[in-house]
Amino acid sequence: MEHAQHGYIGNKDDYLKRLRRIEGQARGLQRMVEEESYCIDILTQVSAMTKALQAVSLGLLSEHMNHCVVNAAQESDAAGQEKVDEAMQAIARLVRS
Amino acid sequence: MEHAQHGYIGNKDDYLKRLRRIEGQARGLQRMVEEESYCIDILTQVSAMTKALQAVSLGLLSEHMNHCVVNAAQESDAAGQEKVDEAMQAIARLVRS
Amino acid sequence: MEHAQHGYIGNKDDYLKRLRRIEGQARGLQRMVEEESYCIDILTQVSAMTKALQAVSLGLLSEHMNHCVVNAAQESDAAGQEKVDEAMQAIARLVRS
Amino acid sequence: MEHAQHGYIGNKDDYLKRLRRIEGQARGLQRMVEEESYCIDILTQVSAMTKALQAVSLGLLSEHMNHCVVNAAQESDAAGQEKVDEAMQAIARLVRS
Repeated sequence: MEHAQHGYIGNKDDYLKRLRRIEGQARGLQRMVEEESYCIDILTQVSAMTKALQAVSLGLLSEHMNHCVVNAAQESDAAGQEKVDEAMQAIARLVRS
Repeated sequence: MEHAQHGYIGNKDDYLKRLRRIEGQARGLQRMVEEESYCIDILTQVSAMTKALQAVSLGLLSEHMNHCVVNAAQESDAAGQEKVDEAMQAIARLVRS
Repeated sequence: MEHAQHGYIGNKDDYLKRLRRIEGQARGLQRMVEEESYCIDILTQVSAMTKALQAVSLGLLSEHMNHCVVNAAQESDAAGQEKVDEAMQAIARLVRS
Repeated sequence: MEHAQHGYIGNKDDYLKRLRRIEGQARGLQRMVEEESYCIDILTQVSAMTKALQAVSLGLLSEHMNHCVVNAAQESDAAGQEKVDEAMQAIARLVRS
């Protein structure tokens, strides 16, 4: 079963809950802009939302490495390194964003 | 008129459009988790969403500095420095998030 | 006097001390690589050094805004906005690095 | 041989060269502060130095994952997951710094 290797499945509901909260933050920001809230207050909310997204990223990455990367490494060196290279590209994007 | 100092008003519709797109990205991420998409593909979308949020932050900060900070500085040194200190706290949060 | 506008002069010795410590961290990292220290320990030192550099940036930026930007705004709207635009480019580089 | 697992050994000279250049950048920054260079020019140099450090981090992390993490995973699930957890802590520090 292909899905068996997707490590976040156990926590799927937790991720969905966090993403719904992030969606709510995006709607809250629209309300703040609509009501012409003070810029600094809007920036504070954007920072909170960015941090929440970053936590989701780190969580997903951790599960990906604990499952996909570890499994691929156990299959063969080449398979492990391919998954590591792919993960490193995602990590570089995270570090730079 | 209090609102006159909120520099993003001219671009309000543009900010609302960008935030609605970000809200849509948050919903897209929920769909991806729901359908158990590949982790790395989800991480790519999270990075795109973080970049979009960062661009909103930098835009709002720029307008805040061009209006509130410049106006406060023209009022008095003390008023200017108070606004600069407040902006620096927001910048530090942006840099660290 | 041209230098009068460079706001970090009062703290020059403090900045020099911090930058000498950062230079020392760069030499410490070379020693660690030379001695083939454990990767994760090297990464921990790199993170500490990055944080120290970030603190230097935020300090310099704060003094720049409190002096150059505030002074320029008091000169004219156009001068203030020019300095704000220049500062925003530096801030965008900081946020993205 | 314990050192055999430290993946950056092949590139040791390359890392030393990059770290010496970073040390030189730290000295260049001291010169700029000493000569009271323009703040924004100093900030540009700090951003360049931060980017160089970030590239060193990502390089070391990549080699660590390709060697230590892959080897540990091939030893056992538990060993692999221990190395992944350790790497994730370093990644979280990188993302937040």
